[in-house]
Amino acid sequence: MAILSEVATEVLIPIAAIVGIVFSISQWVIVARVKLAPSPPGASRSKDGYGDSLIEEEEGINDPNVVAKCAEIQTAIAEGATSFLFTEYQYVGVFMSIFAVVIFLFLGSVEGFSTKTHPCTYSKDRECKPALFNALFSTVSFLLGAITSVVSGYLGMKIATYANTRTTLEARKGVGKAFITAFRSGSVMGFLLASNGLLVLYITINLFKLYYGDDWEGLFESITGYGLGGSSMALFGRVGGGIYTKAADVGADLVGKVERNIPEDDPRNPAVIADNVGDNVGDIAGMGSDLFGSYAESSCAALVVASISSFGVNHDFTGMCYPLLISSMGIIVCLITTLFATDFFEIKAVKEIEPALKKQLIISTALMTVGIALISWLALPYKFTIFNFGEQKEVTNWGLFLCVSIGLWAGLIIGYVTEYYTSNAYSPVQDVADACRTGAATNVIFGLALGYKSVIIPIFAISIGIYVSFTIAAMYGIAVAALGMLSTIATGLSIDAYGPISDNAGGIAEMAGMSHRIRERTDALDAAGNTTAAIGKGFAIGSAALVSLALFGAFVSRAGVKVVDVLSPKVIIGLVVGAMLPYWFSAMTMKSVGSAALKMVEEVRRQFNTIPGLMEGTGKPDYANCVKISTDASIKQMIPPGALVMLTPLIVGTFFGVQTLSGVLAGALVSGVQVAISASNTGGAWDNAKKYIEAGASEHARSLGPKGSDCHKAAVIGDTIGDPLKDTSGPSLNILIKLMAVESLVFAPFFATHGGLLFKLF
Amino acid sequence: MAILSEVATEVLIPIAAIVGIVFSISQWVIVARVKLAPSPPGASRSKDGYGDSLIEEEEGINDPNVVAKCAEIQTAIAEGATSFLFTEYQYVGVFMSIFAVVIFLFLGSVEGFSTKTHPCTYSKDRECKPALFNALFSTVSFLLGAITSVVSGYLGMKIATYANTRTTLEARKGVGKAFITAFRSGSVMGFLLASNGLLVLYITINLFKLYYGDDWEGLFESITGYGLGGSSMALFGRVGGGIYTKAADVGADLVGKVERNIPEDDPRNPAVIADNVGDNVGDIAGMGSDLFGSYAESSCAALVVASISSFGVNHDFTGMCYPLLISSMGIIVCLITTLFATDFFEIKAVKEIEPALKKQLIISTALMTVGIALISWLALPYKFTIFNFGEQKEVTNWGLFLCVSIGLWAGLIIGYVTEYYTSNAYSPVQDVADACRTGAATNVIFGLALGYKSVIIPIFAISIGIYVSFTIAAMYGIAVAALGMLSTIATGLSIDAYGPISDNAGGIAEMAGMSHRIRERTDALDAAGNTTAAIGKGFAIGSAALVSLALFGAFVSRAGVKVVDVLSPKVIIGLVVGAMLPYWFSAMTMKSVGSAALKMVEEVRRQFNTIPGLMEGTGKPDYANCVKISTDASIKQMIPPGALVMLTPLIVGTFFGVQTLSGVLAGALVSGVQVAISASNTGGAWDNAKKYIEAGASEHARSLGPKGSDCHKAAVIGDTIGDPLKDTSGPSLNILIKLMAVESLVFAPFFATHGGLLFKLF
Repeated sequence: MAILSEVATEVLIPIAAIVGIVFSISQWVIVARVKLAPSPPGASRSKDGYGDSLIEEEEGINDPNVVAKCAEIQTAIAEGATSFLFTEYQYVGVFMSIFAVVIFLFLGSVEGFSTKTHPCTYSKDRECKPALFNALFSTVSFLLGAITSVVSGYLGMKIATYANTRTTLEARKGVGKAFITAFRSGSVMGFLLASNGLLVLYITINLFKLYYGDDWEGLFESITGYGLGGSSMALFGRVGGGIYTKAADVGADLVGKVERNIPEDDPRNPAVIADNVGDNVGDIAGMGSDLFGSYAESSCAALVVASISSFGVNHDFTGMCYPLLISSMGIIVCLITTLFATDFFEIKAVKEIEPALKKQLIISTALMTVGIALISWLALPYKFTIFNFGEQKEVTNWGLFLCVSIGLWAGLIIGYVTEYYTSNAYSPVQDVADACRTGAATNVIFGLALGYKSVIIPIFAISIGIYVSFTIAAMYGIAVAALGMLSTIATGLSIDAYGPISDNAGGIAEMAGMSHRIRERTDALDAAGNTTAAIGKGFAIGSAALVSLALFGAFVSRAGVKVVDVLSPKVIIGLVVGAMLPYWFSAMTMKSVGSAALKMVEEVRRQFNTIPGLMEGTGKPDYANCVKISTDASIKQMIPPGALVMLTPLIVGTFFGVQTLSGVLAGALVSGVQVAISASNTGGAWDNAKKYIEAGASEHARSLGPKGSDCHKAAVIGDTIGDPLKDTSGPSLNILIKLMAVESLVFAPFFATHGGLLFKLF
Repeated sequence: MAILSEVATEVLIPIAAIVGIVFSISQWVIVARVKLAPSPPGASRSKDGYGDSLIEEEEGINDPNVVAKCAEIQTAIAEGATSFLFTEYQYVGVFMSIFAVVIFLFLGSVEGFSTKTHPCTYSKDRECKPALFNALFSTVSFLLGAITSVVSGYLGMKIATYANTRTTLEARKGVGKAFITAFRSGSVMGFLLASNGLLVLYITINLFKLYYGDDWEGLFESITGYGLGGSSMALFGRVGGGIYTKAADVGADLVGKVERNIPEDDPRNPAVIADNVGDNVGDIAGMGSDLFGSYAESSCAALVVASISSFGVNHDFTGMCYPLLISSMGIIVCLITTLFATDFFEIKAVKEIEPALKKQLIISTALMTVGIALISWLALPYKFTIFNFGEQKEVTNWGLFLCVSIGLWAGLIIGYVTEYYTSNAYSPVQDVADACRTGAATNVIFGLALGYKSVIIPIFAISIGIYVSFTIAAMYGIAVAALGMLSTIATGLSIDAYGPISDNAGGIAEMAGMSHRIRERTDALDAAGNTTAAIGKGFAIGSAALVSLALFGAFVSRAGVKVVDVLSPKVIIGLVVGAMLPYWFSAMTMKSVGSAALKMVEEVRRQFNTIPGLMEGTGKPDYANCVKISTDASIKQMIPPGALVMLTPLIVGTFFGVQTLSGVLAGALVSGVQVAISASNTGGAWDNAKKYIEAGASEHARSLGPKGSDCHKAAVIGDTIGDPLKDTSGPSLNILIKLMAVESLVFAPFFATHGGLLFKLF
């Protein structure tokens, strides 16, 4: 038996979640102390400097006009973002309602809507609840997951739009203060999301238990709806937000930078507000929903696999809750890690920013390894058995510790490899920048080659992770490895959210007409954010691969599939078609960004041509029209790729059956991971190659620059091509592979009973 | 029993091959009638017009200087190509010798180099020849395959460099004459290659039979070495040739078109000879080796699978030879088809060229369907049994007819879809061209999206082909479906080879200073060739997918694998890593082209800067130096990607065993097909989008042009990026997936006996 008692488990999980929420709120309170209204002259100086009204060496720090201007811009961004999210949620709301009905009807039909109990699949001597109620509870948890995801994305966006101007204002006092403000704001989002996800899941399990009693199979099966809900929302958030942000970004750049030769974020550019809104709805709300989805899915995958292990059969609640305990420990570990960035040390110079962020990853990974060991020792019996596709497999607690840890460390390796290929401190990106000498074509050729190459080590890391954890504990091992990779999600999200906040802060500084010096500081914050954003994407993709494999395992277990044989025609065609789906999906999203950007370009050109005095700064651009174009385009264009992902498992499962569906899932997984990693890294490398030339920090970089040179123009073309690759197609592919797997898992009983119509007919 | 007797089969196959060779020679004789020496004035006019010395309406037709100049350029191109191929063959020769030793040692070690016979695997009552002799004969057939491939590529190159100037000269007499010359020359290569491949294979089988007697298992196992030899050569040919041609092309364009603003193929450009040599070594010799490899592999796959069917067990020679009979029928069908282009009709206008080429595909496919029906009726018994991974499966002759036909027609569909996505007569390419309005970045984004999208229908066609033929006749069905797709290879190759010959003809016209009117005619030939080249690539990729699946099936049969279960950790890691290999490989080849092109750019710039009067046409460029750069770069850079492909199966099989290797093969197949199709089509679309703007044939096209406009510049950037994608990485990926499969098949007995060392150790 485990050392930790059931009661202790019941208490510890919500406590960790609540601690996370309280910490998140406390960070917000600190950020909120930066006032957007000009402070009265002579206000008292508090010890921590947040009340400072005047620091002599900085210019314009008390200029009420600048502060007012910043506040005005912030309002415009926040309004644009809120209005987009509301429009998006309306459409998605309709979809969610329809899909909820589909879930209920499909799962309800498994036993012909009968309300009779049936013998459990894995503990034959017990009676399990009727399929109709499983359908009902799955539907409820689906909606809960969707709502939690919406709330996560929305709160993240609110925090980010609240924090961006405050970061700008703090930048007047120095780079350190600005960094801490941006980082704290990021951690508000990170901790809120991680804790909220855990808490809602925990409460849902406990409430469902009131009905399910000792039918743990049914209980954890219906809980998988939570993952599906979270991930479906994430899909639309990522795709819609991704199209929004890149349509605005590409459109703004193509006219502003290339044709009109005005700097980025220049207030004369009509698309500039849309661009800044995009960062918040795409990189913040979309990414928040995405990582929440991964987290929810990996927890659900682990729980549903655990429910048919000896934990589930013997009703060992503490063992069952091992995945949730890992997440709880993660919150505590991340909390301590955050203090290293905000309180234990202080950033004084620009060059300390990137190491500080990277240190966060190492500290959290190192501490978490200890945390996992502790939890594995406390919560797990020394030996237990796991279901392994028809056989029982014995696992030890230290074996499981190894599974979680290998996931955690594989994540770190992927993060570092991503950094190596996307940061301009290393030779790969410098080579790409160097290729700009002979023009945009060689830049693109080298960039594509870099993206392809960057796949190699992450794939080996993932493969080793899969092999070790699979060998130790079958699909449960994979599920907890995924959870391990995501266990430090609070820190990961803090760093991720820090990026767009800094990006926005820079935009606001530019628009408010603040001095070059302020802009340089926010640019430095942003550059570090770019690299860490790439690392974050690497994590997201790596964990998505493990999560979807775990979900795939849970699906085949639940659908009663014992073997998925590549040597069967049903499987091989699934594999081939599945491997094609990431391409189909990318074609849609890339084309959407392209078309939306073309519309944006036309609008921006129209405004420059028709609004008198716009270039001279005397006329005022119509920002709202650009916001509307991005909103309309992204809402309209997110539907076809969304439909592709959501309908594929339903169609394949219903008409071709579980064997072909297994093939599709495996194919999409193995092909999607590659496309996603290469797309993200190619885009990141082009972005940083451009920044490398712009910054001109080395002899080599200066020989390529300055801004406006032929090399720089070639680099800008690469950067623009990379935008949809790294911020729309690439990151959405994570969701494609995860979502199809979790959807198959939820519908598994239906497919197993009624699926394969086409083969049955012929 | 089959209607066709064994004797009839023995006679018909070599007759078909010899007919093909005779036809090929007769075509050459006709082409050779075009004289490169100026004809004496007043020579007699023969009826067919080939002796015409003067046609009044054409200028300069009897200008001895032009003819002499053309002859001089041809000599330079032919010498460059010959010298490259000799260098390449030297390096590859060393590799082949080493690899031959490896094959002998690995396969010999299966039974510890014993010379004792052993009971056959599938006909237990018979004695089979010792493994040591299988090793020896496999090595011999490997070398035979390699040599046949070398000969095919070399002869193709010789014919092409012989025909290019003749096409230019005929273009003075009209587009129809030039077309027929180019097409006839293409068919020389097509028929020679198809007939030669068949004949060598046939003779080898009959010679091996003298030793093997009634041990057909051993006989056809050792024959698979032929496929491996052919394909290994093809790998180096494709990669080396691909790097050569694109380094020269990209290098020439970047300085010539972009920096110096001189037209393509301008004799002042120092890289122009290298560029034209590249067409011959890459698009002719490389492609010839590639398609020969596919053909050899699909025949071997079909034969080895058939040898363990009832044909093999009951010694039904006619049934056994069904694959070879299909190929024989293909030669006859293609011969008739060719007459439609050269004799039955005459091309009179430019717009008739593309339909004439496309008609070739339709006619050959339609006739071949009848041919397949005939062969299936004559050569197959009504019912026979096939080995299906441990079980026997009954197949009828009309079932097998269906398998071959579905492969044939799937090929046609893939061809047409490829055309739709790469020809500028349709909206996809026009959309890409339109995206050039907003610059190179949107052009690239739309082009990438187009490539991704173009994967969808071919994958469905391949999947349906796989499903139907697999269901009807297991892996034998797939093997003959692949053979069906390749049965019209003679026509396919004729059309394929026609393209680079026309391309070269245009280059020679430009370099010889011939009139604009001649250049327009060769450009029209070339444009049609571009589209058909894309179709040819589609075929090559589609057939590669089927072939490698068939080889995969033969491999698992031979290695004694019954199930390749995705739910086993050994398989899943193979699948993930296998899916990564096309990316690794593409990264290498793309980077190679990029680096080689950079070197070429430096050399071309150096010559423009240091050779006095080069731009004015008074100085003579140093062509040889550029040829040397391309040669050195491609020889050096073809080794790492070649090693990756050749070593992966050996390493995985030896250390991880047949299960993981099966995963790797399946993963590389499903992922590689997508990368290959999208890369080829993206490149083709960019090329034709550029040509669309240049030709200005419609209102829309003229609004984007003319040459030199911003739109056109953006289109040139896209075209340059597409070059390595469509001519180096994309087509080499076919070989990657085929070659790893055939190599695994040849080494299967070794892996099955000694493989999986790493798992055995731990």
